[in-house]
Amino acid sequence: MSWLELAGDTPFGLGNLPYGVFSTGDDPRRRVGVAVGEQVLDLSAAAGATGAPFAGLLTAGVLNPLLAAGPSVWAQVREQVREWLTEPRHADRVRPHLVPRVGITSHLPFEVADYVDFYSSEQHAINAGRIFGAGELPPNWKHLPIGYHGRAGTVVVSGTPVVRPSGQRKPRAAEVPSFGPSKLLDIEAEVGFVVGVPSEHGRPVPAGEFGRHVFGVCLVNDWSARDLQGWEAQPLGPFLSKSFATSVSPWVVPLAALEHARVAPPPQVPEPFEYLRVAEPWGLDLSLEIRLNGHLVASPPFATHYWTAAQQMAHLTVNGASLRTGDLYASGTVTGPEKDQRGSLLELSWGGREPFAIGGGASRTFLEDGDEVVLGATAPGPDGARIGFGEVRGEVLPAVGGGAL
Amino acid sequence: MSWLELAGDTPFGLGNLPYGVFSTGDDPRRRVGVAVGEQVLDLSAAAGATGAPFAGLLTAGVLNPLLAAGPSVWAQVREQVREWLTEPRHADRVRPHLVPRVGITSHLPFEVADYVDFYSSEQHAINAGRIFGAGELPPNWKHLPIGYHGRAGTVVVSGTPVVRPSGQRKPRAAEVPSFGPSKLLDIEAEVGFVVGVPSEHGRPVPAGEFGRHVFGVCLVNDWSARDLQGWEAQPLGPFLSKSFATSVSPWVVPLAALEHARVAPPPQVPEPFEYLRVAEPWGLDLSLEIRLNGHLVASPPFATHYWTAAQQMAHLTVNGASLRTGDLYASGTVTGPEKDQRGSLLELSWGGREPFAIGGGASRTFLEDGDEVVLGATAPGPDGARIGFGEVRGEVLPAVGGGAL
Repeated sequence: MSWLELAGDTPFGLGNLPYGVFSTGDDPRRRVGVAVGEQVLDLSAAAGATGAPFAGLLTAGVLNPLLAAGPSVWAQVREQVREWLTEPRHADRVRPHLVPRVGITSHLPFEVADYVDFYSSEQHAINAGRIFGAGELPPNWKHLPIGYHGRAGTVVVSGTPVVRPSGQRKPRAAEVPSFGPSKLLDIEAEVGFVVGVPSEHGRPVPAGEFGRHVFGVCLVNDWSARDLQGWEAQPLGPFLSKSFATSVSPWVVPLAALEHARVAPPPQVPEPFEYLRVAEPWGLDLSLEIRLNGHLVASPPFATHYWTAAQQMAHLTVNGASLRTGDLYASGTVTGPEKDQRGSLLELSWGGREPFAIGGGASRTFLEDGDEVVLGATAPGPDGARIGFGEVRGEVLPAVGGGAL
Repeated sequence: MSWLELAGDTPFGLGNLPYGVFSTGDDPRRRVGVAVGEQVLDLSAAAGATGAPFAGLLTAGVLNPLLAAGPSVWAQVREQVREWLTEPRHADRVRPHLVPRVGITSHLPFEVADYVDFYSSEQHAINAGRIFGAGELPPNWKHLPIGYHGRAGTVVVSGTPVVRPSGQRKPRAAEVPSFGPSKLLDIEAEVGFVVGVPSEHGRPVPAGEFGRHVFGVCLVNDWSARDLQGWEAQPLGPFLSKSFATSVSPWVVPLAALEHARVAPPPQVPEPFEYLRVAEPWGLDLSLEIRLNGHLVASPPFATHYWTAAQQMAHLTVNGASLRTGDLYASGTVTGPEKDQRGSLLELSWGGREPFAIGGGASRTFLEDGDEVVLGATAPGPDGARIGFGEVRGEVLPAVGGGAL
C-alpha cells in the first residue's frame, strides 16, 4: 500500500515502477523518472535530495548509467523507490518530487547503442511467407532466431511524428523502378529488450545470463515501407524500408516487474542447439493492442512468441559479438493465430488485398497521411494487478516535398 | 617543406596528415594525433600548449568532437598543423609533441554511431552471383547502392585479434544444420567513410552535400563467415556472419587530403534517379593491397567502384534517416576485373574451389587459425606524392572452446 492514492486498476502500480526520462515546462532539464499512478516521481531529484547512494547514476539525462550499474544496483534502486512510496515517514520528503504525468514531456529513455530486430513470431513468419507467395517458413526459421541490424540513430520516443519516407520501389507488374513517397507504409507491433550490462567481445553470453545483462522491456513500433522493402531487400535485407524511424515507448519496465508474466514459450521442435536451450523460460505473457485513429484493430499475444528474449540474446552473442549498455533488440512483429491478433497492416489487410475496418465506416490497407497509430500492452502483475507499458504513439506526416501518393 | 626530415616517399607527408587516437607506454591517456613521416604529432598536447582555439575539441580521447565541428574547423585545424610543421619558428614549440609512431598504441579513432556496409563494386557483385550460382547482378543493383546495417559495437581498431566465430551452418549437401567454429572465414577489403556533421531527421541529404557531412576515409576489413552467412541470411540479410568483428585502420584521412585522388566513377547506365546524380564526382583512385601472412595476394582498385560515397550518403538518407557524428559506412568489397584484384578470399578461391598461393609453397581457400591479414592503400597526393592510409591488421585466433574445425 502506498501513501499515494493509487487507483486499484492503475497500470502503474507499485508492482510496476517503470523508468523513463522526462522534462517539464517549468524545468527543461532531462531527468530520470519512475511512473506511479497518474504521476511521475522525479527520481533524479529525489535521489539527490535524500543523498541516495545511486544518485550519481541519475544525472545524465538518460538511463544508460543506471542500466550499466547492473542487477544489484537495479534491485537497490527499485527497493528504495518502493520504500519511499509506501512508508508514510517518507511522504513529506518525497511528495515534492512527484509531478503529474499528464504535464510532462517524455524523451528517449536511453541512448541506443546497437539496434537489432528479430523475426521470431511463427504466425507472423507464416503469414509473410503466404502473402509473398514464398511458401511457409524459411528453412532456417526453427533453428535460429532470424534477425538483422537496424538503424540506432533513428530510434525515437513515442509522440515523435513519422514523416512518410520516399524511396525506390518496383511493383511486380512494373518494368522499371520508380521513385516517390512510399505507398505501402506499415507498422510492426513489437516488444523491445534493453541491455544494461555489457559483455566481453569474443565471449558468447549464455541464455541463462539473460537477467544479468538485460534490464527491461519497452514497446516498439518498427515502421516499415513495404514497397521500398520489396525492391531493396535482395540480397542483403531491409535497409531504407526500416531505417527512417523506429518508435519506442517512454517507459522501460524492469524485468523485476515481470515475474508474474513469465511463461514457457511454445514447444520448440526440433530441439534447438544447446546454446539456445534455457533452464528457466523467459516467455512473457504480454497482451498487445494496436489502435489506428483511436480504433482497436488488433490485440496480438506475446505469450506464444516462438523464440524468447533470452534465446535471442544468446544467439546475438554466440559468435562473440559483444553487448553494450543501451543495446536494443526487438522481438519481431507479434502476431497470433487469429485475424484480430495480427501485428502489422501487411497481415491485417493480407498484403493490401483485404481492407479492414477502422471504425466510423472507414477502412485501411496501409497507412494514410494523418493516421495515428498507438501501441499499448499490459502483463500480469502481483495480486491480480496489471502491469502497463504505456504507449507508443506516432502520427504519419506527409512526405518531404509533398509528392502525391 | 617541413623543418621535420621527411622521406620523399613517405606515405604520411604534409599532403596527408591523417587523424588518429593513440597512447604511449609513458602516458596511457588517449590523445588525438596526426601522423607525419615516422612520427605522430600529439595534437591534443600541441593545441593545449599553444592555446589553439580548437584545443577543446581534442580532449575527449576520440575524434568525435572534432568530427562534429564541421568543415570550417576541419580546414582551420589542418592549416594550423601544416603551419606548425612547416614554419621553422614553430619548431621548438612543436617538437616536444612529436612521438615516434613505432612506439604508440593506436585506439579506435572515433566512437562509431551507426555502421552501414554497402555492396557497390560491380565486379564483386558479379563474382558473388556467379560463385553462388545466382546469376549476374540482382535486378536492383544498377538502380541503387544496396546496403545494410552492421554492428557498430564490434568495430575494432587495427591490431585487435579476431576470434574465429562459431555459429550454425548448413552446407547444401547436409540435411540438417550443425554448430561449430566457422570453416569459411573470410575478409572483405573495403573503404570506409566517416561522418562528421549530423543531419536533421526527416531531411534527405543531397549528394552534393557530401563534403559538408563526411570528414574522411579509413580502411575497413569486413570479416565474414561465409558458412554462417549462407545459412542465416535469408530472408533478412547477414547478421552473425558479419557482426563478430569489423576492423578499421587507425588513421582517418581527411577528404581535404584526397583532392588529387578524385576521379569520375564508371559510366552509370541506366542513368540513376535524380537524388543519386552528382555534379562533382566523388570516385577515389585508391589502390588497395591485401597481404596474407606477409604475402601480397591482391591489389583491388577503388577508382572503378560503381557507386561513389556521395551517392551512398544520398541513398542512405533519401528516406529521411539522419546522419550522426561517428557514422561509418563502408564501400562494400573492392574488387577489380583481374584475378589479382579480388577483395575477398571467396573470390580469390572462387568459392573455395580454387586454392590460391600465399608464398612459400603454401595456399589457402579461406583463413586458418593464426593467419594474419593486413590491408593497406595509397592514393595520388600533391606533387606526385602518395597518400598512405596506414594498415588494417588482424590475426585470426582459434574459436572459443577450441572446437576442431
